[in-house]
Amino acid sequence: MNYIHGGDIYSDGVLIGRELLDFSSNINPLGIPDSFTIHLAEAINSLTRYPDIQYRELINSLCTYEMLGTVLHKENFILGNGASEIIDLSISCFKKVLIVVPSFLEYELSAKKWGVSIEYSYLDSSLEIDYQDIYNRMQNCDALIIGNPNNPNGGIIDKDKFQPILGYCENAKKTIIIDEAFIEFTNNIKHSFSGDIREYNCILIIRALTKYFAMPGIRFGYGITSNTELAEKIKSKQNPWNINCFAETAAKYVVKDKNYMDKSREWIENERNYMNAGLKEISFIEKVYKSYSNFLLCKLEGIDCHKLYDLCFQEGVLIRKAYNFQGLDEDYVRFAIKDREKNEKFMNILREVQATI
Amino acid sequence: MNYIHGGDIYSDGVLIGRELLDFSSNINPLGIPDSFTIHLAEAINSLTRYPDIQYRELINSLCTYEMLGTVLHKENFILGNGASEIIDLSISCFKKVLIVVPSFLEYELSAKKWGVSIEYSYLDSSLEIDYQDIYNRMQNCDALIIGNPNNPNGGIIDKDKFQPILGYCENAKKTIIIDEAFIEFTNNIKHSFSGDIREYNCILIIRALTKYFAMPGIRFGYGITSNTELAEKIKSKQNPWNINCFAETAAKYVVKDKNYMDKSREWIENERNYMNAGLKEISFIEKVYKSYSNFLLCKLEGIDCHKLYDLCFQEGVLIRKAYNFQGLDEDYVRFAIKDREKNEKFMNILREVQATI
Repeated sequence: MNYIHGGDIYSDGVLIGRELLDFSSNINPLGIPDSFTIHLAEAINSLTRYPDIQYRELINSLCTYEMLGTVLHKENFILGNGASEIIDLSISCFKKVLIVVPSFLEYELSAKKWGVSIEYSYLDSSLEIDYQDIYNRMQNCDALIIGNPNNPNGGIIDKDKFQPILGYCENAKKTIIIDEAFIEFTNNIKHSFSGDIREYNCILIIRALTKYFAMPGIRFGYGITSNTELAEKIKSKQNPWNINCFAETAAKYVVKDKNYMDKSREWIENERNYMNAGLKEISFIEKVYKSYSNFLLCKLEGIDCHKLYDLCFQEGVLIRKAYNFQGLDEDYVRFAIKDREKNEKFMNILREVQATI
Repeated sequence: MNYIHGGDIYSDGVLIGRELLDFSSNINPLGIPDSFTIHLAEAINSLTRYPDIQYRELINSLCTYEMLGTVLHKENFILGNGASEIIDLSISCFKKVLIVVPSFLEYELSAKKWGVSIEYSYLDSSLEIDYQDIYNRMQNCDALIIGNPNNPNGGIIDKDKFQPILGYCENAKKTIIIDEAFIEFTNNIKHSFSGDIREYNCILIIRALTKYFAMPGIRFGYGITSNTELAEKIKSKQNPWNINCFAETAAKYVVKDKNYMDKSREWIENERNYMNAGLKEISFIEKVYKSYSNFLLCKLEGIDCHKLYDLCFQEGVLIRKAYNFQGLDEDYVRFAIKDREKNEKFMNILREVQATI
């Protein structure tokens, strides 16, 4: 088995009893929001009945979630067993998708799985979005999928430059799938396209609890769009009761957890700066790409990602080799941003590695 | 919205704060197994990381589950977000399915959703399986789907009479999907086809935690087959990490919970007899069908299912009108079997209804 998403903490760690520092996985280090754990009893009490097939309370919570920045109704939502389900089913609705790459590998895998044709728009040599290229290629595609912020580099969409694409897709009745799994880490709601959903029918935004609310184990994601025809098409491919009661309870409460959001805001601001500054001092790192998210893509020099992975692994740290992202190669690695203690530990390890090469 | 699966406890109960006695839903009244709740911390600790993409510990537990009655390996398993996911994806693999009806409505809905042609084999006038009819119709179908025990009547497959169908499908490389979501309630492992999986490549068995382990909220089901080609085909349609950490933990432990199984065995034996005997005394019940499961299908006389539903609802009880099962009509209702206190209360209500008509 090839672990395409990075280090496999099960094969290399958990199952053989080894404690690893996981800098390959982009999870908020503040951990599980208390607002979920204090409501666990509600989930347990819901176990013995089927979930509400319409998930009314859950959708009400999402409607009020401030990061949505707009007023929405239940017909605007698609609930998924992880954002992967929404990505997968939405891609399956089209004939040809344009994928901005390098990006999350699942986009491509889903397209291939459903026999959807793929066209790529590559980030330019500075890993910036090539808006003109996207505009041109969209003439031949019926949907665009793009990360905002994008994984693995952490760049965001420039709304002004994106405007022509948005206008074109709206008129031509094409769809723009914007993966905002990391949007909260930007600390600025204006970077999200949630406020544009009312005006633009062409947008489908995908969100998740995975990253920002630190619960990859809960498997909950959702899509929002004012294109209710598309929403219905996606939902018709889902099974009833696809969200279990724990995911339901978690989503209901964490999106209202202001305390968690405040703490996260402070943490990411500080630690992104700290890591950015530290990494720039490391001799074998040629470039740290500007990131609005909780990870930093780096270009290496004098060492390749496999060698660096091995050296870090010997020190008990997992990092993400980024060579298998479309358009990147062995010169790239991605580091997660953790809490200060771990970041410090990790920076020390990188400095030690630096001394040996 | 039409609640095809029976009473909607959310619209009619939970969300408007009304306590209803739910005899429409077939859940083990012993409730959530302790073996899950005492291991909740394990699930919570797993929240902040992605599940093992191979779900190795979970599958190991399922492998040892006594109700499987055979030795299996991980390639024999398909894990699903509820049995519905397995039913849905397995049906999608075929061109034409034969559905034994009346049965669980999702079989038909899935086939229609995926554009799979449907042929029906009706239970006979005594609601017994028409084995010869199945045998004949399978010449034109590539898969059979049948419940064991079957919902809504609770009948099981007679293994001797089923033998020719099994032999034919094995030779002709056709598939038999056996939905064993209720198998544990039969109290006899010999009724399961799990012991036949090694010998017959054509069998795909579907199981769930939903009914017997009283956790419809957890959304966990699984398929077992020795046809690894089919298993791979189904898995290729799934998303990675489709089981969340709570479902994973629940499944790992409850299938080893001997205490729960012992108590369940005693309960179902006693209460099935109690309800059977009681219902046979009710004047407006013409027939109680022989059930091996935790529900009883009844044929009414002198009252139709809508009228009875309304009368029961006035008394705070939800029952399952069975008229929308293929082959049944307004004369049929299905009652769940609950614990003695509830069963008694329900029987008293039926006796009161009897006095008024």
